[in-house]
Amino acid sequence: MSYLYIIEELYNQLNDVEEHGEVATYIRELSHIDSDKFGVCLIDSDNQYHQVGDSDEPFSIQSIAKVLSLTLAYKMAGESLWDRIGVEPSGSPFNSLVQLEYDNGIPRNPFINAGAIVVCDYLISQLDQPEDEFISFVRRVSKNEQINYSEEIAASEKATGYRNAALINLMKDFGNIRNDIGKVLDFYFLLCSIKMSCRELARTFLYLMNYGKDPETGEQVISLSKTKRINAIMQTCGFYDEAGEFSFKVGLPGKSGVGGGIIAVHPKQYSIAVWSPRLNKKGNSWKGMQFLERFTTKTEQSIF
Amino acid sequence: MSYLYIIEELYNQLNDVEEHGEVATYIRELSHIDSDKFGVCLIDSDNQYHQVGDSDEPFSIQSIAKVLSLTLAYKMAGESLWDRIGVEPSGSPFNSLVQLEYDNGIPRNPFINAGAIVVCDYLISQLDQPEDEFISFVRRVSKNEQINYSEEIAASEKATGYRNAALINLMKDFGNIRNDIGKVLDFYFLLCSIKMSCRELARTFLYLMNYGKDPETGEQVISLSKTKRINAIMQTCGFYDEAGEFSFKVGLPGKSGVGGGIIAVHPKQYSIAVWSPRLNKKGNSWKGMQFLERFTTKTEQSIF
Amino acid sequence: MSYLYIIEELYNQLNDVEEHGEVATYIRELSHIDSDKFGVCLIDSDNQYHQVGDSDEPFSIQSIAKVLSLTLAYKMAGESLWDRIGVEPSGSPFNSLVQLEYDNGIPRNPFINAGAIVVCDYLISQLDQPEDEFISFVRRVSKNEQINYSEEIAASEKATGYRNAALINLMKDFGNIRNDIGKVLDFYFLLCSIKMSCRELARTFLYLMNYGKDPETGEQVISLSKTKRINAIMQTCGFYDEAGEFSFKVGLPGKSGVGGGIIAVHPKQYSIAVWSPRLNKKGNSWKGMQFLERFTTKTEQSIF
Amino acid sequence: MSYLYIIEELYNQLNDVEEHGEVATYIRELSHIDSDKFGVCLIDSDNQYHQVGDSDEPFSIQSIAKVLSLTLAYKMAGESLWDRIGVEPSGSPFNSLVQLEYDNGIPRNPFINAGAIVVCDYLISQLDQPEDEFISFVRRVSKNEQINYSEEIAASEKATGYRNAALINLMKDFGNIRNDIGKVLDFYFLLCSIKMSCRELARTFLYLMNYGKDPETGEQVISLSKTKRINAIMQTCGFYDEAGEFSFKVGLPGKSGVGGGIIAVHPKQYSIAVWSPRLNKKGNSWKGMQFLERFTTKTEQSIF
Repeated sequence: MSYLYIIEELYNQLNDVEEHGEVATYIRELSHIDSDKFGVCLIDSDNQYHQVGDSDEPFSIQSIAKVLSLTLAYKMAGESLWDRIGVEPSGSPFNSLVQLEYDNGIPRNPFINAGAIVVCDYLISQLDQPEDEFISFVRRVSKNEQINYSEEIAASEKATGYRNAALINLMKDFGNIRNDIGKVLDFYFLLCSIKMSCRELARTFLYLMNYGKDPETGEQVISLSKTKRINAIMQTCGFYDEAGEFSFKVGLPGKSGVGGGIIAVHPKQYSIAVWSPRLNKKGNSWKGMQFLERFTTKTEQSIF
Repeated sequence: MSYLYIIEELYNQLNDVEEHGEVATYIRELSHIDSDKFGVCLIDSDNQYHQVGDSDEPFSIQSIAKVLSLTLAYKMAGESLWDRIGVEPSGSPFNSLVQLEYDNGIPRNPFINAGAIVVCDYLISQLDQPEDEFISFVRRVSKNEQINYSEEIAASEKATGYRNAALINLMKDFGNIRNDIGKVLDFYFLLCSIKMSCRELARTFLYLMNYGKDPETGEQVISLSKTKRINAIMQTCGFYDEAGEFSFKVGLPGKSGVGGGIIAVHPKQYSIAVWSPRLNKKGNSWKGMQFLERFTTKTEQSIF
Repeated sequence: MSYLYIIEELYNQLNDVEEHGEVATYIRELSHIDSDKFGVCLIDSDNQYHQVGDSDEPFSIQSIAKVLSLTLAYKMAGESLWDRIGVEPSGSPFNSLVQLEYDNGIPRNPFINAGAIVVCDYLISQLDQPEDEFISFVRRVSKNEQINYSEEIAASEKATGYRNAALINLMKDFGNIRNDIGKVLDFYFLLCSIKMSCRELARTFLYLMNYGKDPETGEQVISLSKTKRINAIMQTCGFYDEAGEFSFKVGLPGKSGVGGGIIAVHPKQYSIAVWSPRLNKKGNSWKGMQFLERFTTKTEQSIF
Repeated sequence: MSYLYIIEELYNQLNDVEEHGEVATYIRELSHIDSDKFGVCLIDSDNQYHQVGDSDEPFSIQSIAKVLSLTLAYKMAGESLWDRIGVEPSGSPFNSLVQLEYDNGIPRNPFINAGAIVVCDYLISQLDQPEDEFISFVRRVSKNEQINYSEEIAASEKATGYRNAALINLMKDFGNIRNDIGKVLDFYFLLCSIKMSCRELARTFLYLMNYGKDPETGEQVISLSKTKRINAIMQTCGFYDEAGEFSFKVGLPGKSGVGGGIIAVHPKQYSIAVWSPRLNKKGNSWKGMQFLERFTTKTEQSIF
């Protein structure tokens, strides 16, 4: 049974399924999205693309971009990055501020907001033009010069970003933020505003399914060892307090965003991106989670 | 480079390393163990055994037994088991009682004490002779009729088991314990008292490296799907609040015990057991963690 | 305007008021109480008794008894008692186990369950016949040989006392309980089962309105300094997480029980007991709180 | 024994006592203060002033000013103020952000930082010139046109006010802040920068010892009922997580500031201000606490 066959079958099944979940509304720009959008793209180890639905339509990848900023920062800082951020799952959502206070301003992992903000702070310290240099890095990894930030989404998010401001101020109080708070938050909101289609997303993350090396160009984006470690963090921390559930039901390292996108990789097998804007109660794409669970069940493949 | 060669090399390296950590002392019986014990056994997919050091000496596997009780309960209950226990990592150790209170008596996962106690409660409800039937199940999985509980260790643990008594009483208050508290705790302490050598441990867990099927006898211990799910839970929850760290550095599903043992499996590749009694601050074998990190770094293999 | 006049006026007002709150049901024996019961007794500094309603009918004083056990223990231990218990308000109810864990087994104050259990543990260590000696002390303070425990209520409470068992086990784990857990809990449940009428209750607490001295017999029950301190603890901790509210609205030191009783004292002025079984959401008598708020508003007297 | 005699005796005793505690250093301007400063002023119900030591030297009253802003806001808003702030003690200091998150952005009481910030937000909504109108109010209450803000201290505090910024952003996220964050924080820092001597402080708070009425001018600053309620909140919440301890040992409503000042009132008896900059571990003046404990012990007077 080919990947395409399975993808199409599951796509059709889920298109018929009753609607679940709600589109994220706290970011105004995201609330305008057509909630029925649904796209999938899988790229296999032979570099074959398997696509269905709205897989060529760009959407806001939101937190998925945190994997890319982590990749760049980890590449530059090496293991010293972990002096300022942990690699442990965070437990539950209500804990964000709680645990940050308990752990003296050290975020649990680089994918919760606080951790991703520390990564931004690090990049600002290291790069002359962080915003330009980061998007250049993303374009290189994705082999796509069109990838860009969305200023509208960034502005929309900034307008209601009080909780993120609370997080960064608390970390600043603990001495874990080195740069100006406003500058770091601006970069953070910009980062989260990047838009990609499922096709572009799956393409971009090929390095994580291929031990750090771009399978097309042969460029070693990041070392084998660091690749495995980023995958490990995605596995344990990629879905907020639903990380265990995703690992349990899907069995792949992955990362979600509130725009409704999910990326997952099966090392040496494939990279897969799914997009459907309605979110479940934990803030992850309802249809995306369903799709991936059915997909790994059907293929009987997972990292376990 | 053969597995045996690498194992011996790392074993020698770590034997020369300065001592770290402390033997668990809260269980009197465990505090008598010679802290210099160190053994490793790897069984590969060709059923070859690779052993060094004290790999034939039985030790108390403690919490590692929780994987076996979960296997039996999950096999019997199916997915309904998750009505009473979650599959999410627990965050941090100090949270045990906190999160149990926050989550209305539903333990975060089956490997924290509270979760393993609920598994015991389930087995007591289902089995006529839970103690006998469970050890029979372990013997069948391990193909070893000699495996047994240690009454001394169980008694030793019971004598100071106040925190576990606090946990079970809190869950009883929330209605998540069906049987008599004393009976459940007795079974729980007995379960944790099982003794195995590294060789026996690696042998016992072959089913988890082989998609649920015993590679020697061909018996399907538990289904493919459930095997993957148990491995996923080990990956995210197997090392208390060091689960992320283990996943990050070792990259394999595994489970530790305060007796100093660790089991880890690489699906379709090998099952590996390590034993060294000195524990790091998180309660996991210091040398065992070191060994496994160096092993997957050296072999450049992990599930990621 | 005489006290009796005001009491009768408010009594009539509140008897007409629509019913609020629910009778405590978690203790079976308490759930049988007629929820319309309502009694008040005030004893002034001239030893005049002012009573209305069901003020001669005995009810279960529950946690109010914790003031009496504290008095006896504080008298015996002096300030060393505070090595094992704090004098700070506890914050909120959900914190009981949380804060106990955070504070290493030292309860916040002697009126939350955990603190009252430590007081029991202390008395068991010091007294040969704790149950007999304590009730003798209560009888002497109340000048009433009829005061007694209710074995039925104690048994009823014990049957569902899992949360208290969780608390005492956690404290035992931290080393803050010296005696056998079962023995301490039995004493604790017995203590809470004492029955008194409003008249008896107001009489018993006269020593706290009179600087430690029984105004009738002249016996110094406890020293002036310790009396002020017990009143201070009642002021800040007497109503669980409604202590601030009671202090704010009523302005007197007091203590409530889930049986629907409240005792309050105005030093050098009066002692007042109110009983009405329906409880508000915080577990304090709805009508009792209303009555006392209106009473201190009407009299324009409070300690502030 | 006259108040002056006792004050002088205790003053001399404590001047000989070995130094304890540390001057607050997180606000640069405060760290320059001579740590040996020590002053006391008591004003009795006959309007007699009893002073010793540095009682005429102005110092930064810091959080003590929160009683004054609460008085103004409560006077204007009436009981509707409590829709946005509670009157319960906060439990422990580490809880500040924790409880704010748990309680959906409603601060526990008006004296913790979060609560005082909400009071500022309310005043900004109601007043045209909040900074001018508030200091005018303070001058009227204190009968002293010289009382003023210290711009240096406000600036100094703002420079490191990240935790307060975290608090206000979190409350804004929950919808409990109506005005611009920067504007509210500026007002809050200015408020805390007010300077007074012990004499001025004791004079200012006479209204709280006199049922809301200025004993000199006869002006009713705030109603009797509201006065009692403000005193009640000081009693339960005036000393952060040492409120219970202060109530227990001193037995008066009071409020401390990190500048080393403490104000306490004994209704109908006296108002007393103490100043000594070294702070105990809870952030309250070490010598101030000692002095007041000895004072109420010596006089055998307290509200209890």
